[in-house]
Amino acid sequence: MIKTRLQRLREKDTRRVVGAILAGKMLGIVGILGAMKVFGFLFETAAGASPVAQVAHEASDLVSPINTVWVLITAFLVFFMQAGFMALEAGFARSRETVNILMECVFDTCLCGVLYWAIGFAFQFGTGNGLIGHSNFFLHGMTPAYGTTGVAFLAFFLFQFAFADTASTITSGAMVGRTGFKGDILYSAAVSGFIYPIFGHWVWGPGGWLGNTMGWFHGLSGDAVFRDFAGSTVVHTVGGFIALAGCITLGPRLGRKFKKDGGGPTPAHDLTIGALGGVILWFGWYGFNPGSTLSAMDWVGIGRVAANTTLAACSAGMVAVLFVYPRSKKWDLGMSVNGFLGGLVAITCPCYWVSPAGALMIGAVAGVVVPLGIDFMEARRWDDPIGAVAVHGFCGIWGTLSLGLFATGQYGLPTADGADTSTVIKGLFYGGGTDQLRAQVIGSLTCVVVVFTVAMLVMKAVMAIRGPWSLRVEKDGELEGLDIFEHGTTAYHTEFGQGMTYQSPTGLFGMSRTLGRDDDADGDAPAEKAVPLEPSV
Amino acid sequence: MIKTRLQRLREKDTRRVVGAILAGKMLGIVGILGAMKVFGFLFETAAGASPVAQVAHEASDLVSPINTVWVLITAFLVFFMQAGFMALEAGFARSRETVNILMECVFDTCLCGVLYWAIGFAFQFGTGNGLIGHSNFFLHGMTPAYGTTGVAFLAFFLFQFAFADTASTITSGAMVGRTGFKGDILYSAAVSGFIYPIFGHWVWGPGGWLGNTMGWFHGLSGDAVFRDFAGSTVVHTVGGFIALAGCITLGPRLGRKFKKDGGGPTPAHDLTIGALGGVILWFGWYGFNPGSTLSAMDWVGIGRVAANTTLAACSAGMVAVLFVYPRSKKWDLGMSVNGFLGGLVAITCPCYWVSPAGALMIGAVAGVVVPLGIDFMEARRWDDPIGAVAVHGFCGIWGTLSLGLFATGQYGLPTADGADTSTVIKGLFYGGGTDQLRAQVIGSLTCVVVVFTVAMLVMKAVMAIRGPWSLRVEKDGELEGLDIFEHGTTAYHTEFGQGMTYQSPTGLFGMSRTLGRDDDADGDAPAEKAVPLEPSV
Amino acid sequence: MIKTRLQRLREKDTRRVVGAILAGKMLGIVGILGAMKVFGFLFETAAGASPVAQVAHEASDLVSPINTVWVLITAFLVFFMQAGFMALEAGFARSRETVNILMECVFDTCLCGVLYWAIGFAFQFGTGNGLIGHSNFFLHGMTPAYGTTGVAFLAFFLFQFAFADTASTITSGAMVGRTGFKGDILYSAAVSGFIYPIFGHWVWGPGGWLGNTMGWFHGLSGDAVFRDFAGSTVVHTVGGFIALAGCITLGPRLGRKFKKDGGGPTPAHDLTIGALGGVILWFGWYGFNPGSTLSAMDWVGIGRVAANTTLAACSAGMVAVLFVYPRSKKWDLGMSVNGFLGGLVAITCPCYWVSPAGALMIGAVAGVVVPLGIDFMEARRWDDPIGAVAVHGFCGIWGTLSLGLFATGQYGLPTADGADTSTVIKGLFYGGGTDQLRAQVIGSLTCVVVVFTVAMLVMKAVMAIRGPWSLRVEKDGELEGLDIFEHGTTAYHTEFGQGMTYQSPTGLFGMSRTLGRDDDADGDAPAEKAVPLEPSV
Repeated sequence: MIKTRLQRLREKDTRRVVGAILAGKMLGIVGILGAMKVFGFLFETAAGASPVAQVAHEASDLVSPINTVWVLITAFLVFFMQAGFMALEAGFARSRETVNILMECVFDTCLCGVLYWAIGFAFQFGTGNGLIGHSNFFLHGMTPAYGTTGVAFLAFFLFQFAFADTASTITSGAMVGRTGFKGDILYSAAVSGFIYPIFGHWVWGPGGWLGNTMGWFHGLSGDAVFRDFAGSTVVHTVGGFIALAGCITLGPRLGRKFKKDGGGPTPAHDLTIGALGGVILWFGWYGFNPGSTLSAMDWVGIGRVAANTTLAACSAGMVAVLFVYPRSKKWDLGMSVNGFLGGLVAITCPCYWVSPAGALMIGAVAGVVVPLGIDFMEARRWDDPIGAVAVHGFCGIWGTLSLGLFATGQYGLPTADGADTSTVIKGLFYGGGTDQLRAQVIGSLTCVVVVFTVAMLVMKAVMAIRGPWSLRVEKDGELEGLDIFEHGTTAYHTEFGQGMTYQSPTGLFGMSRTLGRDDDADGDAPAEKAVPLEPSV
Repeated sequence: MIKTRLQRLREKDTRRVVGAILAGKMLGIVGILGAMKVFGFLFETAAGASPVAQVAHEASDLVSPINTVWVLITAFLVFFMQAGFMALEAGFARSRETVNILMECVFDTCLCGVLYWAIGFAFQFGTGNGLIGHSNFFLHGMTPAYGTTGVAFLAFFLFQFAFADTASTITSGAMVGRTGFKGDILYSAAVSGFIYPIFGHWVWGPGGWLGNTMGWFHGLSGDAVFRDFAGSTVVHTVGGFIALAGCITLGPRLGRKFKKDGGGPTPAHDLTIGALGGVILWFGWYGFNPGSTLSAMDWVGIGRVAANTTLAACSAGMVAVLFVYPRSKKWDLGMSVNGFLGGLVAITCPCYWVSPAGALMIGAVAGVVVPLGIDFMEARRWDDPIGAVAVHGFCGIWGTLSLGLFATGQYGLPTADGADTSTVIKGLFYGGGTDQLRAQVIGSLTCVVVVFTVAMLVMKAVMAIRGPWSLRVEKDGELEGLDIFEHGTTAYHTEFGQGMTYQSPTGLFGMSRTLGRDDDADGDAPAEKAVPLEPSV
Repeated sequence: MIKTRLQRLREKDTRRVVGAILAGKMLGIVGILGAMKVFGFLFETAAGASPVAQVAHEASDLVSPINTVWVLITAFLVFFMQAGFMALEAGFARSRETVNILMECVFDTCLCGVLYWAIGFAFQFGTGNGLIGHSNFFLHGMTPAYGTTGVAFLAFFLFQFAFADTASTITSGAMVGRTGFKGDILYSAAVSGFIYPIFGHWVWGPGGWLGNTMGWFHGLSGDAVFRDFAGSTVVHTVGGFIALAGCITLGPRLGRKFKKDGGGPTPAHDLTIGALGGVILWFGWYGFNPGSTLSAMDWVGIGRVAANTTLAACSAGMVAVLFVYPRSKKWDLGMSVNGFLGGLVAITCPCYWVSPAGALMIGAVAGVVVPLGIDFMEARRWDDPIGAVAVHGFCGIWGTLSLGLFATGQYGLPTADGADTSTVIKGLFYGGGTDQLRAQVIGSLTCVVVVFTVAMLVMKAVMAIRGPWSLRVEKDGELEGLDIFEHGTTAYHTEFGQGMTYQSPTGLFGMSRTLGRDDDADGDAPAEKAVPLEPSV
């Protein structure tokens, strides 16, 4: 190493230049180091620690702060999944529908926030009966903490809003590229405001029938009730099957050829963005699952949930890639991303109740469900551009059922004050019989049947609207590209040469048709008024 | 479903291949599941929980850890807003100025860190008089916790550094595309080291005149003093109006035609990156506002701040889109992003003191302020490529004033030990009269007048420098593109064909001129020494 | 301002349109504001705070929850560094090897998770002897908390998995563009499963020789033992020198010309993504370093670590840019990013024991080490496409040594219950003599010698395999581009025109060769079955 450097320095021209630079730099560094002696006071820093403690606290006063911090930070992570969905969906779709995807994610989030504030939260978490909640409309009647969670009411609201938003966004995945924006607003409002919160009440709401009594099915699963820790069913199966209903109702994008017709999925327009979106989702899942404890006092539980979430994702990502490798002899990036997402969806329901090894198994199976699910959609000629149905719908079912197999029988429920193991859940493989499995089948089937039916009705109804409020965009709009038609611009404009010349994907060799966004140009402003090619100052 | 699958399997060639694959896979799965019985010990996991507790703690010992964790994690989120600003600004700007934007964000962050360590923190949070702090230079004289916050001094420093960095970055937004890099260093140093910290001292510093006595204006607002919870004024109006000063001083980019001249804003070069940047900012805002409590012990408060922040963003994003829809009949992605950012800016001041419904109202108005503000800038022929002035400057003013309207009269201030409601803030709409509103007007007006004046002086002074240290880049450099001129490369190089052939946006059909970055090539290294097209091993 | 707006309104056509819009909007706003009076109940919100406290807690019960929350959230941030690495490496590499980089990061993460669960964690943190741990295989025999940390065992596992994953990913950086995917799997397994965990045991494991007794070198450094707070050596030097071994073994990419041969580094294909990746890494480092306290009870310590981390990054980023400016007269974005990353690597070892001013110094030197290190690699004709060896390898050494210079002598170790200052570390510049410096030299040298030697053996062994499992991809594959050859697709497909027409970087003016991913097409599905250009519903 030294020799090479010396040899390089011996080269004539280089030596002088590099030498001068280095000498100067080194002088500076030495000077700085020397100055440390002179300005020694800079290097002092406070020692010891004397906590501020004017106010006497009791330990119980600290439970709500700790739990609220935990729920808020995990809520932030769940919210950040929106960036993941945007990147994943946009990246895996075509460049012509990119702006549409981004806009739907942003607008649906805004819409969901307003609706969830007004009615969604009340339907889902308000007190009421087994079917629906009917208090806390417009967040009226808040208490400091929600229920017995010890978590600030509005922190709990934020966490649950982020969940509702997730369900809504999942839906759009299988409907990419041919859904009109007005149609999107209509069905999104139905999802965020009604379908998700009401089904959610059944499982998680106070007195919800699936989570408490099993209603009509009472007794069919022994004492076991349906359990879904963080929402394999409530969020992902719901989102996935609404997506399926939309996908079937819409039909495929124009020109889409399926595999059995000699075609295949459209290539991702930006795999970098798509894969980064997947990793952002994984990151956000650390809010989704561990945060669903709603309690940091159950500290062993949050550690277990976080580790199980990770291991299921790892095994699913690996298995999915290895599963498709033999057929294509290619290491499929898209499949690795959809694979680990499938593992994350699957572990979402059982994450609190299984062991790390169980999580690895659950993930591994999900890694097979994803490619088979995508094949199935392709075989049915259902055009799901990013695999949302396979990942969220099918893996959601698998994850929900897996609890009935893998629950270890050691864990009960987290509470504001720690883990409560007075009633534990035990699955088939751990000697618990089929009670829990039957409860899971009932819950999952209920979700698929009820949500899919309602979603088909909603989608068909919106589809039946004539004109621009229909679910499917006009044919001209789809041919032109949703981005231009609905949003007036394409996502990318690369400039070349000097001055203001752009190319866009739709006008590669000519001028962009969207330059200036002057749809509302008055016509009375002649071009010669343009700023001349001189700075004005 | 089953039928289709069977039918597919009946197809001759497929059946054998798929059959073999499936059989093999299923065997593997069964094998794995079987192995679970044998290696049952893998599926064990620890039950119960026995906390380590050798040391006896008192509850008061835990207040500083909890508050410090809260402040640190929110500080990390605020820092992450840099990624959001980089993506937002780069995405919404032209491809020829992308590297410049990225570099400014990175370099300004580094510069801000050093300056804030040396002087900024001392000016802002050191003890001193009503105008400026003058202790803790170079972080000399630190105590374990800052003041009575119960938060570790250096955690508090980090949080405030991230704020200073944000203000500095906002500024660059309206100056994109024609600011020389050396000029950028000069004005950034003024912002990070002086303008932001000193104005910040007035509001948040110990004894700052606006936040404590209202100084010369004492009595004009009754007992009310100026309040700015997380910085609608201190960070956003300051940043926005410095940006405006820079924007006016610089003049528009060469060739920029305004709407009334038949042109319009330049199209975003990458809306995917731009929109993702917006969502990252929203995510980071969960550090910005909730973290400004500096206390997790006020657990109801942090929940309220987080929920209010969300709801204001949601209503603002939705209103902004709906406001511009009638004129263009397009669903404007850029407006949705700038809309929710405007809502976030507006709620930043009042987030602690208003109700969720109030937050929705404040956001809704911000959703109108943003498009009107952008129109105003366009009408004035001020070239703000990403809407920074409208979003941060104008919505900052609105948010600051809104506190005087919407404060509910239920909340006082967060302290290290919880919420202090001994003195509450009540706005006009809640029967509190105009005292608080007048205090807000005084504070906001002071900011606009003082900061804008000082910023104009700074910008004009830097502009007046001749040669490369001037604020505006040389004309040749701007025509060539800032990226090439200042940074020697363009942001994108797409390779095609085999070997090492690149295209860049500035040389689409030829070789990139930046290949090799060999500006300092010695000239004595002939090309024929190149590594041959063979692996060297 | 008002005047201009009025003037604009006076223009004939505009006035009517804008007037109508504004009037309508304003009516709406007034209506909404009015409605507030009527629906006043919406604006109520909960006052006061009454924490749920049915269960009596003692303060000591809260230590594990607080520490576990801290470790989990920082673990999430460390995991998120994967997104940073993916973006950084992909952005700075060529477009032809982008999918390969993304896929390696995803797959290596999955592989690392499984291996670390099975053996890695046991080797590193299981009890055993000074050389290796041999308990907790497959996480067998977990206790609720790991050791005396008071942190949930599985939270600790997750944190350490994220570290292992980081080491593994760093390695791939210097091997970009010519490593076969199967070869990648082989060496990654060696890194994640063996090299990293075993060396990690020496420093951080229970009874590890470097961290406890200094083994054969006992006495050479007085009482001082080797210290590496968060892994300048354990993670970064290890990762960097394995990368170097791989880089040397592989040889440069085909066609790569080095600076002394008239060439230079290949241009980054997407600097936006690359720079964002750098900032994501900085964000993730706030998990890496502060989380390594494993304790939030040492609240002064976590604040200090976070601030030191920031300041080192700031000074390093600035110094690196200023160091290379004189030679190229360009403000080098890539160097600024690699510069601050070098600062972060350097401060990783000493972050707990130095002062803010010390951190600035350490960073400043790192800012010089990075460009000199990159020059050195270039001079040696070692093809490190993203500078991984300079940043992680060389700055890791500097950071490790710097502890022996800059440790202030005020700090000992964090424990589950707070800071323990019974044994403090003092460096040369603070009057502590050379004991600690000698310990650091021994540890760093051990790492370089042992890890580099083992890594060379592993790399040579994999390289020696014939056929597709070799370390270096076949020549045809490299010429075609790794993305096409190994993964069957390029990262980008820009659509143009109407219908399903794509361009990809490898087939710019023709059809993409990867359209349809139909490698396993049956051949029995004629194209005429394609969905016609009509919606099917």
